[in-house]
Amino acid sequence: VIRVRIEAFTVDNVPRVKDGDDITDFLQNADLRDGDVVVIASTIVSKAEGLTQSLETFSPSERARTIAERLHEDPRFIEAVLGETIETLIEKPFFLVVSKFGQVCVNAGLDRSNVAEGFVLLLPHDPSENARQLRDRIKDRFGKNVAVIITDTCGRSFREGQTGVGIGFAGIAAMKDWRGVKDLEGKALEITNEGVGDEIAGLANLMMGEAAGGTPIVIVRGISYEDRDSPVFRSEETDIIRRAIRDANRQSKA
Amino acid sequence: VIRVRIEAFTVDNVPRVKDGDDITDFLQNADLRDGDVVVIASTIVSKAEGLTQSLETFSPSERARTIAERLHEDPRFIEAVLGETIETLIEKPFFLVVSKFGQVCVNAGLDRSNVAEGFVLLLPHDPSENARQLRDRIKDRFGKNVAVIITDTCGRSFREGQTGVGIGFAGIAAMKDWRGVKDLEGKALEITNEGVGDEIAGLANLMMGEAAGGTPIVIVRGISYEDRDSPVFRSEETDIIRRAIRDANRQSKA
Repeated sequence: VIRVRIEAFTVDNVPRVKDGDDITDFLQNADLRDGDVVVIASTIVSKAEGLTQSLETFSPSERARTIAERLHEDPRFIEAVLGETIETLIEKPFFLVVSKFGQVCVNAGLDRSNVAEGFVLLLPHDPSENARQLRDRIKDRFGKNVAVIITDTCGRSFREGQTGVGIGFAGIAAMKDWRGVKDLEGKALEITNEGVGDEIAGLANLMMGEAAGGTPIVIVRGISYEDRDSPVFRSEETDIIRRAIRDANRQSKA
Repeated sequence: VIRVRIEAFTVDNVPRVKDGDDITDFLQNADLRDGDVVVIASTIVSKAEGLTQSLETFSPSERARTIAERLHEDPRFIEAVLGETIETLIEKPFFLVVSKFGQVCVNAGLDRSNVAEGFVLLLPHDPSENARQLRDRIKDRFGKNVAVIITDTCGRSFREGQTGVGIGFAGIAAMKDWRGVKDLEGKALEITNEGVGDEIAGLANLMMGEAAGGTPIVIVRGISYEDRDSPVFRSEETDIIRRAIRDANRQSKA
């Protein structure tokens, strides 16, 4: 007896995405079903939105030059990162910031991979809005009720390596709420809030690959999920690690 | 054309695990294949190892009492956590420590869910050694070459919720090394080290569930992976966030 079985597959033959492309075009042969989770790399959302930008267009500020020098980085790239940033947490040995839509990520998640030399790919400004639009368009076009997760690849504290995470969600709650559910012994669970959206994003990221030959769309089938809004980024008030980093910064400036 | 397809399924009818149980007994009907990744919740590894311990056996130190009082926690539970801890990072509003095997986790990952009231479940002391033993025993008993990941559920910085992560690995590298691989434009990738072990652990955790009715073993099939040792926990030297928290602690004590 198998109670839970999921399958996941890549959507292949996705061409190089360019400004103005309709991402749902790539799903025409995907044989979508109701309940599928369509996981889409933010890179192609950005490319379809025309967010590939030449580094030439960024005039580095004094601050960008200072940070770039310490990191042996291109000051125009750091200027691009600053443009997406609402708070700087760590400037060295990597540039960790809070992005405008609330993600804490090195370089605000900006990437120079998979775009031409001398270009940078900005992140979507409101990835959940992109997810909602894509979800609606899938419904209109193919008549299927799916969830959409837009992913990024990001490092983490305390653990090596980067993993796929969700930055935009539509039709699926990023968190599963376990409050009120009982454990084997009838007691309340200690785990109350599970980041299921990121658990799905991580699997999809693994299947996508990062390189040439990778594929930017993965369909996950067989997962039961809830459809409600649930924030994935900690608020300033509840983010204790962010506060600790700020305190450490104040100390080093004192 | 689908290039990557994975499937994952829960192993069902796993009974309540008790001290001395052989976990491979539960895999007899799992129809394992070479290359499968067998993902096992650390809870059942701990139970099979007899690591369910009565809180009565812990005599709280002065320090445990102080921390417990601030957190409105049972001082015996905090004493149990301290026994698994090599460094305390945050004492309030949650107790974040570095465990003896290197994981940074609230309460060292100790759990009172799914054990009887008044008991705590300790984590395995060397989860990768457990993973190796289970992998060898699966090979001996069923003749299959599989990888084994032992998981825990842990919160993360900056993002809400807890997710499944790997704490023990055998036959699979926790990290995929992308160095030297080229992107779409023939440039070196910016992502160099992907935490694939945790991406698999996250998916499995999602399928396991946390509660009564959950299942502690998931088989993941169709993933290509490398078999080598690769650390999942950042070393003290490279853990910049840990250092920032230490600096903040020094400041608050000064």
